[in-house]
Formats: sequence, C-alpha cells, structure tokens
Amino acid sequence: MSDMRLHILGCGSAVPTPRHNPSCQVLERRGELMMIDCGEGAQSMMRRMRLRYNRLRHIFISHLHGDHCFGLPGLLSTMALHEAGGTVTVHILREGADLFARMMEQFCGPVSYRLEWDILDPAERRVIVDRDDFTVESFPLYHRVACCGFLFREKAKPRHLLGDMANFYGVPHYRRQEIRMGADFVMPDGTVIPNDRLTREADPALSYAYCSDTMAAKRVAKVVEGVDTLYHEATYGDDNAALARKRGHSTARQAGEIAAMAGARRLVIGHYSKRYNDEEQLRREAASVFAGQVIAANEGMTIDLGNGDIAGA
Amino acid sequence: MSDMRLHILGCGSAVPTPRHNPSCQVLERRGELMMIDCGEGAQSMMRRMRLRYNRLRHIFISHLHGDHCFGLPGLLSTMALHEAGGTVTVHILREGADLFARMMEQFCGPVSYRLEWDILDPAERRVIVDRDDFTVESFPLYHRVACCGFLFREKAKPRHLLGDMANFYGVPHYRRQEIRMGADFVMPDGTVIPNDRLTREADPALSYAYCSDTMAAKRVAKVVEGVDTLYHEATYGDDNAALARKRGHSTARQAGEIAAMAGARRLVIGHYSKRYNDEEQLRREAASVFAGQVIAANEGMTIDLGNGDIAGA
Repeated sequence: MSDMRLHILGCGSAVPTPRHNPSCQVLERRGELMMIDCGEGAQSMMRRMRLRYNRLRHIFISHLHGDHCFGLPGLLSTMALHEAGGTVTVHILREGADLFARMMEQFCGPVSYRLEWDILDPAERRVIVDRDDFTVESFPLYHRVACCGFLFREKAKPRHLLGDMANFYGVPHYRRQEIRMGADFVMPDGTVIPNDRLTREADPALSYAYCSDTMAAKRVAKVVEGVDTLYHEATYGDDNAALARKRGHSTARQAGEIAAMAGARRLVIGHYSKRYNDEEQLRREAASVFAGQVIAANEGMTIDLGNGDIAGA
Repeated sequence: MSDMRLHILGCGSAVPTPRHNPSCQVLERRGELMMIDCGEGAQSMMRRMRLRYNRLRHIFISHLHGDHCFGLPGLLSTMALHEAGGTVTVHILREGADLFARMMEQFCGPVSYRLEWDILDPAERRVIVDRDDFTVESFPLYHRVACCGFLFREKAKPRHLLGDMANFYGVPHYRRQEIRMGADFVMPDGTVIPNDRLTREADPALSYAYCSDTMAAKRVAKVVEGVDTLYHEATYGDDNAALARKRGHSTARQAGEIAAMAGARRLVIGHYSKRYNDEEQLRREAASVFAGQVIAANEGMTIDLGNGDIAGA
C-alpha cells in the first residue's frame, strides 16, 4: 500500500440518480484526509466508508455549483457534533466562503475545531498548501462558471537507508539524514562509500490532479503535465459530444486525450451524466485514446495511487 | 386507502447514524405532496420512495437546526433541473428564508417554478395555508431555539350521495351539492325525503400534527387537542430523561403523555438519538402511557392516516 489513496464518495453529475451521489472524493495521505468537492451526502458517505471526521484537515471546493458543495454545511456541523479538533481549512471561491461562513454562524455558532476559509483565485495557478514534503496547487479550469482544478504533489522522498550497511561502515547517526538525501559517506580514513551501497531507491513521489468540471482544454493538460494519476470529468460519451461542448463539460474520449497529452500514468473518470447506465462504455471510449490504466470511478471505491489497485467497489 | 398518507423520509436526530436520516416527512393528500422538515438527503429519499418532485407544493421547516433544513438547497435545485412547474412555498423562519433565498440566487439563478417564501411566526398560532377543504396552522413549540409545530386539518367533508336513491326520488342535479352538505330533499308534492335516505356518512376529516423539536409541554397538547394522528419527537428514553430536559427534547414516555392529553387517536414517534439501536424500547415506553396506536417511525415507511395501515418499512 502506497502513501496516497483516493476514495470515491460520489461521481455523479448535477442531476442526481439512484446510482450515483454528487461529486465528492477524499484523498488520504499518511492518515490525513483531504476532501475534494463536497456534494450532498458527503458526511454519510464518509461514515459508510469509515473515513474519520477528525482526520479531515482540508476541503477543496472546485466551484459553486450545488452538486459540488451542498454537503458542506452538514459535514462541518456534524464534525462539530463529533467534537473534531485541530484546524479544518476550506479552500473555496469568495462568494462560497461568504455564504457558507454565514450558514455556519447561523446554524452552528462556535465549533469545536478551528475553521478557516482560504479564498481561491480561479484565474491563476497558485500553491495553496505548501509543506516540507507535499504541495497542493489550484489552477483554472474552463466551465460555465469560475472553476478550479487541484494538483496534489508529493516532493521527492528520501532514499531508504540500509541499516546493516550503515552500521558496517560506522555511519554516525547525525550523518544519516544527508545519506538518505543522496550524499556519499567519507570514512575517517578518507575512503568514500558511494551512496548506492548505503541506500536503496526512494519510494516514488506520487501526484494526483483533479479536473472537474471543465471543457477539455490543452491548457489543462499542460498544467498537469507528468502527473501520475489524473481525475478528469467525463460527463458524456461520444454520442453527446455537442452537448458536452455546449455545457462546458467533457466527453470520456476527451478525458482520455487530456490524459495522453499530459503523459499521465493513470486516468480516473467520473461526473457521469444521468443518461449513462453503464460507465463501461465511457471507460472504453477513454481507453481508446489513452494507453495507461483507465478507471471508471464508482461510489465506495478506493484506489491505491501507487500501484493502481482498486478496492471496495 | 384514505386521502392522507404520511411518508417518513428521515427520523433521526442531529448526530447522523448509518440507521437514520435527519428529519424529513412528506404528507400526501389527494396527490399533492407537502414536505415537513428537509434534512440532508431529502431529495434522494424522495426519489427512492418514488415521490415526484413536481407534486411538491409546500415545504414546512420547523426550525433552523441543520438536521431539519440542510436538504433544502439540494432539493430546490434538483426540482429546477427536473423543470418542475407551479408554485412551491417554503414556510420558514425569517433568517432561514434570507439565507436559503441567497443560496438559491447564488447557485441556481432563475428556477423553472415559482418559489415563494412564507415567513413563520414562532410566537403565535396562525393559519398559514387556508383552502376550501383543508388548513395548515403553525404553532409554537418549546425548544432551545425558535421552533414551530404544524397542524394539518381537513375540513368536514360532504356526505356521499346515494345515486340510485337520488334518481329514484328525482333529485335534480343542481340540488345534489346541498344534499351532500346535509340538506333534506323536498319533492314537488311537498313530501320531505330526509337526508339520511339519500346519502351515507362522509369520510372522516383527517388531521395530523407535527411536533418536533420540543420539550413535552401541556400547551402543545392543548393546541393539538382532538388531533387524529400526532407526530411527537421522542429523542430519548426514560434512561435519559434529564438529558431530554436539558436539551429541550422529549422522552418517548412524554410523547405518549402528550398524545393522551391531546386525546389523539394515534401517535407516531421519531427524532431518535443515536444512542438507541432499537426503537421498540422507545415505542413501548410511549405505549405504556397512551392507549391508542403507537408507531415508531422508520425511513421508507408510509402510514395511511385513515386506518393506520403501515407499508414499506
């Protein structure tokens, strides 16, 4: 199991169906949860998927359509009822922050955790979370209204120190961190022990991009270039390509094209129109133009972003 | 099947559980739907229970706690996506109308139906829907925040005309309505045909009262006196009577006492705390002090308010 897993809580589009919830995903990284979009029912799905409220630290809302954020007041209230602690940051467009902050005031008053609102800029690429080992960037998508994509990236990870070898060569503990970062070790007698005798390869730094809702756009492929796993909306199939264009959405084939252009390793599709009862058709259309792994998202699914293993759907 | 049926879409309380949705009911009368409270997930439950969006004409929101109204933006948006027509009136406290109207503006813009906001007065008993054959009144409940109960009442119904007898005595069509209303028929020769030879008894006028959330209060029993079916919250059992008082809620036994005081024919309980895994305990506590029918509400249940038949749960 790798460090990053993607949980699918909802992958339907605006018109709800008995088969799909509105948009919601949870990215899990080393036990921390980050939610991406928060359609109605997000809190129930978290419970059902056994994702713990008090591990949720960030909520990223791509845009202000109800199927991407109407679960927010309920989730934030329930977290307060569960006496979740720490800081929860909601990344959202300004009008959304104003409205939902007012709702929280009206309905909850003071909450058990620290609730912060981070205002997104839908016009520019911007780092919105910056940590030693991890960043999140927001970037423009192209929908009928202002809309942001999100790019989650681990920074390069340290190599694994081979404990036996380090002991054999007498590497003191205070030098080990720089060895992990790639340095050779110079013994007291001047002998140089090359790094690759003391360490083995680092785990790959994983990355994940979330692109919904949007028209298929080369500019988006450019921003997410080299991403490991790309989630791209695929509201329609080839049969509704004109409708996709008109409504600022993408077809599954276009999602595949963007994944190919970006050189992604893996594509996850979702945000299905209610028209489709079988997402396998959409998956095949995407796979016809993209050679990597293509996964049709489904509620309850968990994807290991390292090896692409799928569980629970 | 009588003219009024009660659908239970949610009967849990503030802390959501896997077993119950937050508060939501739909009262169906002659094909028209009236929703009472609208917790998150109301739109999904409507779909699951095959209650059609475009039959919904009124939504009554008892108070501004999230578990009673966070389903509203999603439901109203989805109704617009389904191009529901006609007028939909939301009866709600002023702060709620302000907030939700602003949300609708932000998220939906113009909708396919006419959306009206009727401001409730939580301090006084007041008729809020008045029709030829039916009224709805709001009245004060006693909770931690301003809260309204709702009383739905059919007016006395016309008697059933016995067609064969009316024809036999030559009752002209233009006289038949007054015969239905109870008049005798005077034949051209002066002979009086008493009404009970021309008609049979009217269907009973049904009534339903919704009391949630509230402390048990004699004043409430007084307002709903003589009601046919009473829904009264029963958040706790005897084991948590002190907590009920502290939080402005009722125990199941108190719900039974109010039903008995009001002389109701039938009691429906709900708004269960997450503490209870078996509502049968609560039902029994209510039934120990109330001799009429006691029903423990459950999601998916439909209750015929005429004969008390239960389906679907």
